[in-house]
Amino acid sequence: MEDKYDFGLIGLGVMGRNFILNVADNGFSAFGHDLDQEKVDALKDEGDKEHKIDASTSIKTFAKALKQPRKIMLLVPAGKIVDSVIQSLLPHLDRGDIIIDGGNSFFTDTDRREEELQKRAIHFFGAGVSGGAKGARLGPSIMPGGSKSAYSHIKPIFEAVAAKYEGEPCVAYLGPKSAGNYVKMVHNGIEYGLMQLTSEIYDLLKKAGDFSNQELHDTYSQWNEGRLQSFLVEITSKIFVQKDDLNLSELGLLDQIKDKAKQKGTGKWTSQNAMDLGIPVPSIDIAVNMREISALLSERTAADKLYDRPETEKIDKTKLAELAEEALYFSFIVTYAQGLHVLAEASKEYGYQLDISVIAKIWRAGCIIRAGLLADITEAFEKDGDLPNLLVSPNFVEKVKGSVNSARELVAFGAKNAIPLPGLSNSLIYFDAYTSTRLPLNLIQAQRDYFGSHTYERLDKEGVFHTEWD
Amino acid sequence: MEDKYDFGLIGLGVMGRNFILNVADNGFSAFGHDLDQEKVDALKDEGDKEHKIDASTSIKTFAKALKQPRKIMLLVPAGKIVDSVIQSLLPHLDRGDIIIDGGNSFFTDTDRREEELQKRAIHFFGAGVSGGAKGARLGPSIMPGGSKSAYSHIKPIFEAVAAKYEGEPCVAYLGPKSAGNYVKMVHNGIEYGLMQLTSEIYDLLKKAGDFSNQELHDTYSQWNEGRLQSFLVEITSKIFVQKDDLNLSELGLLDQIKDKAKQKGTGKWTSQNAMDLGIPVPSIDIAVNMREISALLSERTAADKLYDRPETEKIDKTKLAELAEEALYFSFIVTYAQGLHVLAEASKEYGYQLDISVIAKIWRAGCIIRAGLLADITEAFEKDGDLPNLLVSPNFVEKVKGSVNSARELVAFGAKNAIPLPGLSNSLIYFDAYTSTRLPLNLIQAQRDYFGSHTYERLDKEGVFHTEWD
Repeated sequence: MEDKYDFGLIGLGVMGRNFILNVADNGFSAFGHDLDQEKVDALKDEGDKEHKIDASTSIKTFAKALKQPRKIMLLVPAGKIVDSVIQSLLPHLDRGDIIIDGGNSFFTDTDRREEELQKRAIHFFGAGVSGGAKGARLGPSIMPGGSKSAYSHIKPIFEAVAAKYEGEPCVAYLGPKSAGNYVKMVHNGIEYGLMQLTSEIYDLLKKAGDFSNQELHDTYSQWNEGRLQSFLVEITSKIFVQKDDLNLSELGLLDQIKDKAKQKGTGKWTSQNAMDLGIPVPSIDIAVNMREISALLSERTAADKLYDRPETEKIDKTKLAELAEEALYFSFIVTYAQGLHVLAEASKEYGYQLDISVIAKIWRAGCIIRAGLLADITEAFEKDGDLPNLLVSPNFVEKVKGSVNSARELVAFGAKNAIPLPGLSNSLIYFDAYTSTRLPLNLIQAQRDYFGSHTYERLDKEGVFHTEWD
Repeated sequence: MEDKYDFGLIGLGVMGRNFILNVADNGFSAFGHDLDQEKVDALKDEGDKEHKIDASTSIKTFAKALKQPRKIMLLVPAGKIVDSVIQSLLPHLDRGDIIIDGGNSFFTDTDRREEELQKRAIHFFGAGVSGGAKGARLGPSIMPGGSKSAYSHIKPIFEAVAAKYEGEPCVAYLGPKSAGNYVKMVHNGIEYGLMQLTSEIYDLLKKAGDFSNQELHDTYSQWNEGRLQSFLVEITSKIFVQKDDLNLSELGLLDQIKDKAKQKGTGKWTSQNAMDLGIPVPSIDIAVNMREISALLSERTAADKLYDRPETEKIDKTKLAELAEEALYFSFIVTYAQGLHVLAEASKEYGYQLDISVIAKIWRAGCIIRAGLLADITEAFEKDGDLPNLLVSPNFVEKVKGSVNSARELVAFGAKNAIPLPGLSNSLIYFDAYTSTRLPLNLIQAQRDYFGSHTYERLDKEGVFHTEWD
């Protein structure tokens, strides 16, 4: 027994390799499995006195090497591969063993897998891992959902390897079934929103303020010292001054990168699922849309030739940077608000019993959307766990009031100057609509009743009404 | 045989009853079926010398009464009811009979049903019907998809009952499988977009121009005489002056209608499926979002109390109406462009072999999104069936150029004055992004490569690249 390993990991790609090394760094013995002999050999080489690490291309050897209950994490691409890895594992498992899917599996897949494995008394966790390759190595944010009782077995390892925020590990049991995958999906949806915002503000600073890459670096660096402090603002500041590693151009690398943004689905899933739940997330939807439009590069180039663009007005650099900082702060808040709103509704709909404050807490470090703001968000939901929306938190009203007007000014500027500010515009639309007692959708109800007899409600009388329209 | 009926219809609700009366008006004998005796009796009462109509609560009697190949249309709610009606029909059908689902079934359901029925040599059509109750009675737009060979049997009836545009019937065989349901789904997505636009412009005219209901009526009526001529603008003009039929208020009925817009799913499906296809439809997405936000009435009311709104600037009525007309024209074009873009991509993805010009043609009358614009759209796609986007049609470039600046002005105004113009804003964002050779999404690709090693392409060199970021 003393020779058996604490933790098993399947899939020794960048994320898997880094995660298992992180586990070993924290004093747990760890055994890896991959079908690729090279990856297995590379991992074996990492073992030394302080790091008890081994690996094998044989799944049988792998399973035999693990302590019971086995704790086996999968870091393989989402989809059918997860199912086939589980199938190959099953003959070698015992009742009570634990499988953890660390990938971005779609949440209904996780529910299905958990149900099937439950019949064999195998515990299954969907545990989103965020932080990229570096995070996996040095401390990611981990979002596990699954069997509460089985969590105690993996808790010590996860808490050891997770990122720490003021000493607190960025991992917590989030809820039953696919709660962990769902939370990770929405995390990525928010990530899409924030990335879109940082990119459109970059465009604005360049076009309206003639910011050089160096000035962009300085500006984002400075922002990162303040209330916009966040992983994405930080890396963006670095990206602006990254040298072209191919030395093909005098310009920085960024200027040579093609503006065709790819996506892997989690942002899209967030938008699609939010629509199923009836929760508006326009700042995320438009980020998905912009990636789609970006992919239509040849169409865009052809269309560009047909239309003139208004000449861009210029704004004083200092003034522009100030407006942009405030607008970005405003729209970051609104984007988090939308994502958290989805989580609250999903919790009811899917029975996740989520504690939003705990989620905000484990996002404070390690993950891609970590930001100073998350400490404030944590506090807001600790004060009031049933907060219907971040925008009505007493902690946030003043922050929003103090920044929304810059958003107004820049959205207006962008519209007039043909500089698309999709995330900012939709954050403002969301804010203005969400804070309106009266919206003009009474007209839509009237239209629906007019042509489809769909009925409507009235403001002054309970009930459902239909009119024979003239 | 001479006693048998030309056409059968199941589901004698408002739509079904009206559709079958329309069939009878056009000289075809028609037999209805519903489980509700009252509805059956009411339909029987409509028979006279010129109208050969009968009905029964017995599905057997119904099936026996029909000429072979039987042509049976279902106008029942989408979902499981369609399946159960089909099941109850099957024992009474013969090879070669034709079932037509006239409801808003989800397209994959139609594909599944067609496949199952094909095994029994029963033809199945998904045929979206648009035009509301009145359209069903007097001439709807019909969008059938299914077996091309079987279409000849239903063609004469559909062409007789369909709306006519300058003598041409608003129905055509659209393509195999679920082509008809898919086209109807996107029709409804466009409908969501146009409804949102008409409603937000109403809000703007009221808030910035102090338009009375009478003035709104006059304005929309006038617009309906020009290039904005459309069913939705027309009924909206009437809605503004509709009297309160409960006489509870001096105000018109519209002011008493609650601003909680319902939805039945087709708009949402369009948005969700467009995301699956990677085609941006932000003007439709935001319309779905706005219905969702409208439903959060109590949350909105609470949030409203926490924030002040900037005082609304006023715009001269004549000037405002002029700007609004241009902006609405612009955003109508962009919304159609997005919907048609989805259809073109769906045609490739699902093998529908759609002819966009034919679709535009059968939308020119009868359906909810009928509009003068559709004649221009038909022409644009007749000229170039492979047009990648309406915005690059030579027929449309000048129209867009002449109207986009008003959209710019109003979006800017709305942002500054806290009047959300979601459809207009997103139409402008779409336009500005779609006509940009360069978007700032190079930064998003850089970020993705930075934290996730997702690689990127370059502008100046073929290939896929990854950088070890500093």
